[in-house]
Amino acid sequence: MEKNELQVEIPSVLKQSSCQNIGDVDCVDCENGNNSLNLNPQLARQKQYCSQPILVAERTGRKLVHSETVRDSRFDPFKTWSGKLERQISNLRGMPTEEEDLEAGETKRHESEEAPGVDRYFDALEGPELDTLRATEVSVLPEDEKWPFLLRFPVNAFGMCLGVSSQAIVWKTLNTSPVMSFLHISPMPNLILWWASLVLMVFVSFLYLLKIVFYFEAVKREYHHPVRANFFFAPWIACLFLSLGIPPSIAANLQPIIWYILMAPLFLFELKIYGQWMSGGQRRLSKVANPSNHLSIIGNFIGALLGANMGLKEGPIFFFAVGLAHYMVLFVTLYQRLPTNATLPKELHPVFFLFVGPPSVACIAWATIQGDFDHGAKILYFIALFLYMSLVSFEIFLIYQFSLAWWAYTFPMTGASIATIKYTMAVTNIFTRSLSLCLCAISTLTISVLLVYTIIHAFVSRDLFPNDISIAITKKKPKFSKMLAHFRSSRSDRKDFDSSISKGLEI
Amino acid sequence: MEKNELQVEIPSVLKQSSCQNIGDVDCVDCENGNNSLNLNPQLARQKQYCSQPILVAERTGRKLVHSETVRDSRFDPFKTWSGKLERQISNLRGMPTEEEDLEAGETKRHESEEAPGVDRYFDALEGPELDTLRATEVSVLPEDEKWPFLLRFPVNAFGMCLGVSSQAIVWKTLNTSPVMSFLHISPMPNLILWWASLVLMVFVSFLYLLKIVFYFEAVKREYHHPVRANFFFAPWIACLFLSLGIPPSIAANLQPIIWYILMAPLFLFELKIYGQWMSGGQRRLSKVANPSNHLSIIGNFIGALLGANMGLKEGPIFFFAVGLAHYMVLFVTLYQRLPTNATLPKELHPVFFLFVGPPSVACIAWATIQGDFDHGAKILYFIALFLYMSLVSFEIFLIYQFSLAWWAYTFPMTGASIATIKYTMAVTNIFTRSLSLCLCAISTLTISVLLVYTIIHAFVSRDLFPNDISIAITKKKPKFSKMLAHFRSSRSDRKDFDSSISKGLEI
Amino acid sequence: MEKNELQVEIPSVLKQSSCQNIGDVDCVDCENGNNSLNLNPQLARQKQYCSQPILVAERTGRKLVHSETVRDSRFDPFKTWSGKLERQISNLRGMPTEEEDLEAGETKRHESEEAPGVDRYFDALEGPELDTLRATEVSVLPEDEKWPFLLRFPVNAFGMCLGVSSQAIVWKTLNTSPVMSFLHISPMPNLILWWASLVLMVFVSFLYLLKIVFYFEAVKREYHHPVRANFFFAPWIACLFLSLGIPPSIAANLQPIIWYILMAPLFLFELKIYGQWMSGGQRRLSKVANPSNHLSIIGNFIGALLGANMGLKEGPIFFFAVGLAHYMVLFVTLYQRLPTNATLPKELHPVFFLFVGPPSVACIAWATIQGDFDHGAKILYFIALFLYMSLVSFEIFLIYQFSLAWWAYTFPMTGASIATIKYTMAVTNIFTRSLSLCLCAISTLTISVLLVYTIIHAFVSRDLFPNDISIAITKKKPKFSKMLAHFRSSRSDRKDFDSSISKGLEI
Repeated sequence: MEKNELQVEIPSVLKQSSCQNIGDVDCVDCENGNNSLNLNPQLARQKQYCSQPILVAERTGRKLVHSETVRDSRFDPFKTWSGKLERQISNLRGMPTEEEDLEAGETKRHESEEAPGVDRYFDALEGPELDTLRATEVSVLPEDEKWPFLLRFPVNAFGMCLGVSSQAIVWKTLNTSPVMSFLHISPMPNLILWWASLVLMVFVSFLYLLKIVFYFEAVKREYHHPVRANFFFAPWIACLFLSLGIPPSIAANLQPIIWYILMAPLFLFELKIYGQWMSGGQRRLSKVANPSNHLSIIGNFIGALLGANMGLKEGPIFFFAVGLAHYMVLFVTLYQRLPTNATLPKELHPVFFLFVGPPSVACIAWATIQGDFDHGAKILYFIALFLYMSLVSFEIFLIYQFSLAWWAYTFPMTGASIATIKYTMAVTNIFTRSLSLCLCAISTLTISVLLVYTIIHAFVSRDLFPNDISIAITKKKPKFSKMLAHFRSSRSDRKDFDSSISKGLEI
Repeated sequence: MEKNELQVEIPSVLKQSSCQNIGDVDCVDCENGNNSLNLNPQLARQKQYCSQPILVAERTGRKLVHSETVRDSRFDPFKTWSGKLERQISNLRGMPTEEEDLEAGETKRHESEEAPGVDRYFDALEGPELDTLRATEVSVLPEDEKWPFLLRFPVNAFGMCLGVSSQAIVWKTLNTSPVMSFLHISPMPNLILWWASLVLMVFVSFLYLLKIVFYFEAVKREYHHPVRANFFFAPWIACLFLSLGIPPSIAANLQPIIWYILMAPLFLFELKIYGQWMSGGQRRLSKVANPSNHLSIIGNFIGALLGANMGLKEGPIFFFAVGLAHYMVLFVTLYQRLPTNATLPKELHPVFFLFVGPPSVACIAWATIQGDFDHGAKILYFIALFLYMSLVSFEIFLIYQFSLAWWAYTFPMTGASIATIKYTMAVTNIFTRSLSLCLCAISTLTISVLLVYTIIHAFVSRDLFPNDISIAITKKKPKFSKMLAHFRSSRSDRKDFDSSISKGLEI
Repeated sequence: MEKNELQVEIPSVLKQSSCQNIGDVDCVDCENGNNSLNLNPQLARQKQYCSQPILVAERTGRKLVHSETVRDSRFDPFKTWSGKLERQISNLRGMPTEEEDLEAGETKRHESEEAPGVDRYFDALEGPELDTLRATEVSVLPEDEKWPFLLRFPVNAFGMCLGVSSQAIVWKTLNTSPVMSFLHISPMPNLILWWASLVLMVFVSFLYLLKIVFYFEAVKREYHHPVRANFFFAPWIACLFLSLGIPPSIAANLQPIIWYILMAPLFLFELKIYGQWMSGGQRRLSKVANPSNHLSIIGNFIGALLGANMGLKEGPIFFFAVGLAHYMVLFVTLYQRLPTNATLPKELHPVFFLFVGPPSVACIAWATIQGDFDHGAKILYFIALFLYMSLVSFEIFLIYQFSLAWWAYTFPMTGASIATIKYTMAVTNIFTRSLSLCLCAISTLTISVLLVYTIIHAFVSRDLFPNDISIAITKKKPKFSKMLAHFRSSRSDRKDFDSSISKGLEI
């Protein structure tokens, strides 16, 4: 992984230079190279970049032929079987593959088996979601061009499912709770939201499955990303939400087998993640702790809640116990804000709302397990309430750059609303009823605003899925020569380039 | 705040030099400048310092007039309206204010709006209470002179109220607990102590209110002090103690409205303090954690106890829950002794007794909420007992330099005594009765010793309120030139000064 | 301690050189010097090392006499009264003691009163048990020779008692639990294992007592060792295990007085250890935290369990509370893996199994205190179960170098088995019964494997007690000259030595 680092970039540079006459620096526009796989319409639309003069002649030292049928190979390292399959196909066709290309391909494949270490993510990225490239870093993929859709489709997209399906639960609770019956909520909102979230879930899962199939390297890089990794819990949590929010008209009671099927992968994934915390190494908690770790905890509590709802006894307590132990560790660690927790955002950010999630859900789960909203549930509920108030008091609703991850950050509000309704069922008075109404209104409003934002970004500004720069980092710190090459390639004017070389860089 | 750093000191230097002929270095004694505000007798007694030759001629580069009516402006930056009001008055009188003075005044006022950052406190101060100036630092206020009384009156003074009012509760409990009835304690000690603490509370509050009015900058600096800030919880806790210890002859039951009135500011203050821990920045917990943080936790538990005593249900559980969550975080953090926790005293110190406070009070609160001294209360009680024994076993009663803050450090003993009496009510035997008696005796003895100490320091050695050096730190690290100037001004002999200049400093 | 550092080594060097003619570098073989104390057969078998030429002539600057009756004084600094007693004896005999020897002896005795600081252990040693000397360090005792047996007998040996006596409890539980009666376990395994563990305990205690008597300095060094210190809890825990596992045929019920006798030293030791965590200094938790700290926690829970078994009420809750509070702190600290926790092994290691111990034992203790396997006990049990699964999933059973400490690392498995049987009594079904059987089988198997290993190492390869290098560290960082001397002494060939001097070291 580390020895061949220089060669990751070279192929794409070579490919780029292959469509231009290198002896003279005029740029020759070349036609689109069709992607020979054509698995997905979006995949085929990549263009070859030839607009900048690239001085690679002295590096390559050979005269390149101007070929017409080049395909964009810059995304190859992220593709699952691009190289192998194509070569097999061309071998079948009897076309000779250049030896050099083969070597590069081998290197690429070898490299793609290893994702960058956690330290690299911290070094190369910044921001609360670790999704912005630092100034000193070079992106592996072209930054000035739209990538294939699947490469831009992040696992965060499951956050939308979390948001919508949790709304379905709120409306189900509003509809079925006797204490909120004065509102006369019809079962329709629950039904609509549930079907919407089911469709959304199927759609998002299908797309992400495509990504797994075609861009496994990109999925692997998301999985190793210290913040993004936690979003791999989102699909399971969303499924649990769907099970919880199922309209009474569809199914009164779910079979416990569903619980076992849903909890098995969650459990295995937790063994993995918590094991990484404990066993140290790069992914130890004092290093990776960030609010998105709450997602792994929430999975436990939601699972406990669903199981208890189904009438199970021991399984829910198991997940509650595991969640509680790790929540305690995470809560203390995040509150301490160790100097080593680089990811924890310095400013307030919607991600902080994840703090409200675990105690809210734990409160409902415990009340369901106990069959009573006892002191334990109240303590958990009041912790959630205090954290909620604490965040609201910080005027958190400043304008941040919208991101898909926001959906995940807002579902804890929904959790707090449901917990408040449950609390109102235990302590019914005008104050608790107003609080329930108020929190439900806030959560519905927030989700609606997010929906509008998402629609605007999806269909108007068409940038709902920007280039996912957080997976495009190099595996080792870029060398100066690379940064220079990158600098060159991003300059559009020959003269600027020359003068900067002579003045600023070569001195 | 940081740009004008050089000008903080200059005005006072200028003022000082204004009463001497700078061209020759002879010192001219000047008369007392009367403080034209005269709000407080003490304020008027500052003297002008002219006894040291100060070489500022080359810095100011102008000939200063020997003025007769100078007032001591060195404390101005800490006064709330000194400059403004005076200037208004002199403007009314038609006296021309020097342009330069005005500028300096503006600068001062601008500066005084910002207190030093937390880092500055850690850099400039040392000791478990962060109240000693490091050798490399320069005090903003004159160290060799007694400051105005209000400037020396720290928020720690509320510690006395905590100590005395908690004693009132002990004697009330001894008087009313059936299990201690064999002692035949009369209701008088409670009555006397309660009235004494009420008077003390009114008196201390009045003085501190004056400080807020006249030296708001000093109050702000206390509020930003990482240790001192926690003492702002003391007034509210003292009020809660007063409510808890109210003699049965005065009021059998308090109105719940009192609880709401007392808890509202405490709650808002907690939102602020805990929010600072969580949201990071300079005041994050891994940086500021020190035993005095326990005060904020104790407020929660005492509030929960008072509410439960009044028969409230949900409010007390809310505060108990918030207290428990943050206590857990603080307990772990303090026990870990992170390398970043600079304030935590390296040696044992009375401040460690604050460790005993939260579990003792939490135990009583939980027992009152539950209406039963159950296993939960016992666990909290035994944790308190173990910590108590742990501290006693360390021979903590070494002679330290007495400070007002000690009062706050000893009230946890009182809390432990009351918890022991409550425990004795649940588990009555000769051992628990003896333990109750023993702990009550220790707490009463400690408070008595402190009272004697305080009286000696107040009326005999008259140094109960020494210069509060912990608020007199500069806002930025002093430059060498300043340290040199300070060094010069503290030398009394011309020759020493000259020789040290030529030998030690200029080389 | 720090001033005389140079002289620690010199005596042994002098002694070594005393049996050879230094002027010429030929090595003269000298006879064994008999240990004049002869307290233990092993002590007498040390040989004088003269096989390497040592260039100390320029250091000593005097001609040494070839003496015949030298004794090996290199282990003297670790002996309790070697020097003193011997000198007294030789004085009685009228033999003149050389002045120089006396001085060296004084120095040694003075030094031996202070053990190395914790930092030294971290600096000089490595490995998860801090038992390997770093390459840059020099051992105080000869590494290439077997030390006296008692010096090699570590406090870890009590781990064997823990392992065997906990097995006795498993078989007692299997025999007496109605839920496992389908297995028809006879009371014999319990009886045999209990007697075996009793004999083992007496034997190990006797040997360690001898070490305390004759090599107190070595015991002190073990006590100051950050990992080893925790094993001083092992004897008491083993006694508690013996009391818990006592066969019903021997005693149906133990007298509570036994509990008080056993818990008193444990309690005092805990006050000391936890006090060190809290009071900071070198032994603060953020520095010394490592899985072996779990031993101190387990003592609390086992004590609580035994007390509750005896029908005591408050004492067990006390120890449970103290254990719980400190377990929480330790659990969070270990899970966080602070960068300052150097001892925590980077790779997985049997020591991690200590993680399973506290929650297992706490679960049984709580269930016994409550008289019911309630939700609290279940939460503790499931935490233990999750940690167990987490460790097993990491393929921990790789081949590590066997060490006696392993016994202590495996008894948590036994704890988990017993907890599972208790859980099965509360929730009886085929799954829980199978789990009980499975965990009991694993623990028995593990202990059997360890037994075989131990027997092989004890009687076949005869290296059960290797040189205990972890107590043989110098008190200060060795100087380069010392490291050089050490390097020289370990070279066997004169030429190699010369050439390395001329080539590698003097350049």
